[in-house]
Amino acid sequence: MIAPPSAAAGAAARTRLDGLAKPLGALGRLEDAAAWVAACQDSCPPRPLDRVRLTVLAGDHGVSHDGVSAYPREVTGAMVAAMVAGGSGANVLARQHGVAMQVLDVAVDADLGGLGPAVVRHHLRSSSGAIQREDALGVDEVRTALAVGEALAGEEVTAGADLLLLGDLGIGNTTPAAALVAATFGVGAEEVVGRGTGVDDTALAHKTAVLTDALARVGRRVDDPVERLAALGSADLAVGVGFLVGAARAGVPVLLDGIVTLAELAVAEDLEPGVVAWCAAGHRSTEPAQQLALDKLGLVPLLDLGLRLGEGTGALTALPVLRSAVLLLREMALLADLAPGA
Amino acid sequence: MIAPPSAAAGAAARTRLDGLAKPLGALGRLEDAAAWVAACQDSCPPRPLDRVRLTVLAGDHGVSHDGVSAYPREVTGAMVAAMVAGGSGANVLARQHGVAMQVLDVAVDADLGGLGPAVVRHHLRSSSGAIQREDALGVDEVRTALAVGEALAGEEVTAGADLLLLGDLGIGNTTPAAALVAATFGVGAEEVVGRGTGVDDTALAHKTAVLTDALARVGRRVDDPVERLAALGSADLAVGVGFLVGAARAGVPVLLDGIVTLAELAVAEDLEPGVVAWCAAGHRSTEPAQQLALDKLGLVPLLDLGLRLGEGTGALTALPVLRSAVLLLREMALLADLAPGA
Repeated sequence: MIAPPSAAAGAAARTRLDGLAKPLGALGRLEDAAAWVAACQDSCPPRPLDRVRLTVLAGDHGVSHDGVSAYPREVTGAMVAAMVAGGSGANVLARQHGVAMQVLDVAVDADLGGLGPAVVRHHLRSSSGAIQREDALGVDEVRTALAVGEALAGEEVTAGADLLLLGDLGIGNTTPAAALVAATFGVGAEEVVGRGTGVDDTALAHKTAVLTDALARVGRRVDDPVERLAALGSADLAVGVGFLVGAARAGVPVLLDGIVTLAELAVAEDLEPGVVAWCAAGHRSTEPAQQLALDKLGLVPLLDLGLRLGEGTGALTALPVLRSAVLLLREMALLADLAPGA
Repeated sequence: MIAPPSAAAGAAARTRLDGLAKPLGALGRLEDAAAWVAACQDSCPPRPLDRVRLTVLAGDHGVSHDGVSAYPREVTGAMVAAMVAGGSGANVLARQHGVAMQVLDVAVDADLGGLGPAVVRHHLRSSSGAIQREDALGVDEVRTALAVGEALAGEEVTAGADLLLLGDLGIGNTTPAAALVAATFGVGAEEVVGRGTGVDDTALAHKTAVLTDALARVGRRVDDPVERLAALGSADLAVGVGFLVGAARAGVPVLLDGIVTLAELAVAEDLEPGVVAWCAAGHRSTEPAQQLALDKLGLVPLLDLGLRLGEGTGALTALPVLRSAVLLLREMALLADLAPGA
């Protein structure tokens, strides 16, 4: 059980919001966001969200040999290289918002050592198993990955972070993510399957069949969250679960991205109840599994722009809105200070 | 007729977006926004939206003597003073995003000369008429106000602007704004009336009656947009209409705010067809008239956060999202430049 954010600071933020020079509730959902940050910081008003750090976890997936993606798996390594070079969408937005970012090869099926030791320092394996016919990982590998994720979050907190962002990169990763969401919430493949990077109708039907096979193969064994990650997840997704647990344990809030981080949170909340209270949703993606997880976890995203790029881009796009919420709470004049009839 | 943004530059932006290192369409509505900016600038890729300027138009309204607002009209002057002092919500967000802002007393029912000559340099009258029983303005006053608005937009363009924002401030201003929307699109009071700053059910019923009386009083005379502003608008709203026409004529895009700027655009589009093509919607507010105008004008807002503060705060909150769209189009790597299997 993770200790919750401070109810007292959240309540103080609500009181202050009601006292600002504006009609009651006129900042809409920015008021909820501001109160959440205050609660996470146990401080009203909260500090500005100046120090923000993004970790992007990259991996390949056994299912990507089976036509669940519009892209070949070689794209994963190429995109990690593009990210190291600064040309990905996440890089662009991280520069815009002054976010420190790193990309980690957790399970890419290519030798990325040439991109530097930092990128491959947590390479756990080359791809994860094809979940429709085999487990993605061994249980021991899941435990290792969870520990790596917790340690990564700890490193980020030590580096100084008012807010952490988590992103994903990997051809085929929406399939295990959807499987984890389906297994966590007990729904069928057809309720979670989506077009990912943009598969056509034929490939969508195939992806649904892969998901159906995977869920049928594992049965009730996946009621346990560690078994679920082993059977239906991947190394990179397991690291993400550990990352979210670690951030929540350290009391540092996280702004979530799309389907992959929502799947990670769904499992993390089962593993350590209370993680979700430390998370805010950046955006609503086009993936049904992401929307289902948002609803089940009680999260209302800040943005709804039809993004489906991953990499943390949804969280990054939402970041300035969350920052606005905090700044408004901090800096707006109080009604009591206005001079009526100036 | 206003000349449209460049279709060629918009098409070039679409081609470039399709060539970026991402799945087709993966940036969702950010792609539409980026292509729109490129079209407005007649340049692909477009310049970053570095130089952004906000003009807030303040005024009182005759209807505010009749209980259509939760606040007394003295608040208008007090809020102008708070804005000059830097304590309004708009100030906070303008600082966050490096936006140059000014607030102008167009029709405040108070002597605000003490706030400096710049604030009152376009003071046209003290309040506008109570539209349920008299015209808001004379037709000559409307023409003066439109000219002031066009001149203001011209000043902003001359100062250097990649994007203009328009905001409003004034107790009671959602009533004439809703009246203008209703008259423009031929709908009844009950379809446009909203709670503004937060009136209760009794006041909402009264506000509906005021709107009904106003619309019944003026009849078909308001088919003409200048007559409409005279009969149902206000001096500050008429200046806003002129501002939007002036910006579009100068070929500088505008990011819209809430009900007041949408009402201004509804009239501006009647006055000079083509203005809407130069406008993007920042956010969806809680006001039914704003939502109706968005739909009628074919605009899809970037944000939907339940904001209802005015002052340009919705546009300011959306600004970094529009900036992201432009930066992604400019700075993301091209697929052709990726090295597969890096």
